[in-house]
Amino acid sequence: MSIVYLIGAGPGDPGLMTVRGQQCLEAADVVLYDHLVPARLLRSARADAEKIDVGVAAPQALEQEAICYLLAEKAREGKTVARLKWGDPFVFDRGGSEALFLHEQGVRFEVVPGVPAGIAVPSYAGVPTTYPGGGDTLTFVRGHEDEGKTRASVDWTSLARLDGTIVCYAGPDQLPPMLNALLSHGRPPEDSAALIYDGTLPTQETMLGSLGEISRSVKQS
Amino acid sequence: MSIVYLIGAGPGDPGLMTVRGQQCLEAADVVLYDHLVPARLLRSARADAEKIDVGVAAPQALEQEAICYLLAEKAREGKTVARLKWGDPFVFDRGGSEALFLHEQGVRFEVVPGVPAGIAVPSYAGVPTTYPGGGDTLTFVRGHEDEGKTRASVDWTSLARLDGTIVCYAGPDQLPPMLNALLSHGRPPEDSAALIYDGTLPTQETMLGSLGEISRSVKQS
Repeated sequence: MSIVYLIGAGPGDPGLMTVRGQQCLEAADVVLYDHLVPARLLRSARADAEKIDVGVAAPQALEQEAICYLLAEKAREGKTVARLKWGDPFVFDRGGSEALFLHEQGVRFEVVPGVPAGIAVPSYAGVPTTYPGGGDTLTFVRGHEDEGKTRASVDWTSLARLDGTIVCYAGPDQLPPMLNALLSHGRPPEDSAALIYDGTLPTQETMLGSLGEISRSVKQS
Repeated sequence: MSIVYLIGAGPGDPGLMTVRGQQCLEAADVVLYDHLVPARLLRSARADAEKIDVGVAAPQALEQEAICYLLAEKAREGKTVARLKWGDPFVFDRGGSEALFLHEQGVRFEVVPGVPAGIAVPSYAGVPTTYPGGGDTLTFVRGHEDEGKTRASVDWTSLARLDGTIVCYAGPDQLPPMLNALLSHGRPPEDSAALIYDGTLPTQETMLGSLGEISRSVKQS
């Protein structure tokens, strides 16, 4: 059946895939996956399914446009295509671009939401993202800037003032300036903070402390 | 096995339950569920499992403290307990209180994150929560205030200034004042907006328009 499933595979633990996502993966003739998608998930695909690594850091790296055309091409061949993505397809990911492209090309697709890293990773570290008495907002902010915008797109003053939890999506180089920005725009250094690597994976590491402590720690490492 | 699983059941579509959540539900001797949890999910529980509706709006409504004690009591009887929650247990929910209580009582528990409504509901309405060029933040804000705080806990000025997507968790009475607050604090009325009822369910209804249009619409209804 000609269709593309844009599937959120969750942030790492294969158990965080949704039941619907699992069904779509098992039905797929072709699986396109990012390099952050857990390898164990691919075992759920059919043995005869074509599996294509399109992760940017992987050897077979493909540009985003090429991925879009590949999705459309496979669907036009009458294939059922599973496009596996880290976390949720629409949270700081190109899922929106792929969905728009498929729509414009007249290719049938379905988005299968996933558990985003910003929710599951703190949970696995024992940190509730919201808590009774802990504010009425929850904000995700990303460290990698969208290439179409200038560096100053995040209003750090406003972000620092929100009383709820802030989850930073950041690599090691991106995190120190983000924490600096929060602190220099008035977020109290004594606020509770958690630093989490490899969230939801067996290799997960967690450091709990104050925002000030965590900020000093990431600068030294 | 004495354990409590605090499981995010997703926002409505049973297919959005995670594979891990499904496994825990199938293993459970006792299932405690909120009234927003999809009834079809309960069919995955064992036929002989005790099923207890603890939803606040349900006839058998139990106070939060009573739910906590019930979870601990069932686990102490040696039971495997599945506590099903709408969306994710830690997103604008009492999962944090239940986890803390179980920890203090020395009852073993595991949190199984779920797909939050704020992610899946826009997806099912065809709205990407983030998009290349659409800002670097994603914020959830709730309309029901935490009872321990004053009405003014959300900094609407700051929230309105963030350039990314804002998802309001709100009932019909809560939404008009939230949209008013966003507009009166400077969010442009021409910003794109979506109003979604019964998200991810077969009864889902979606209205797309500008923030100003949506705001006028909810005031009239």
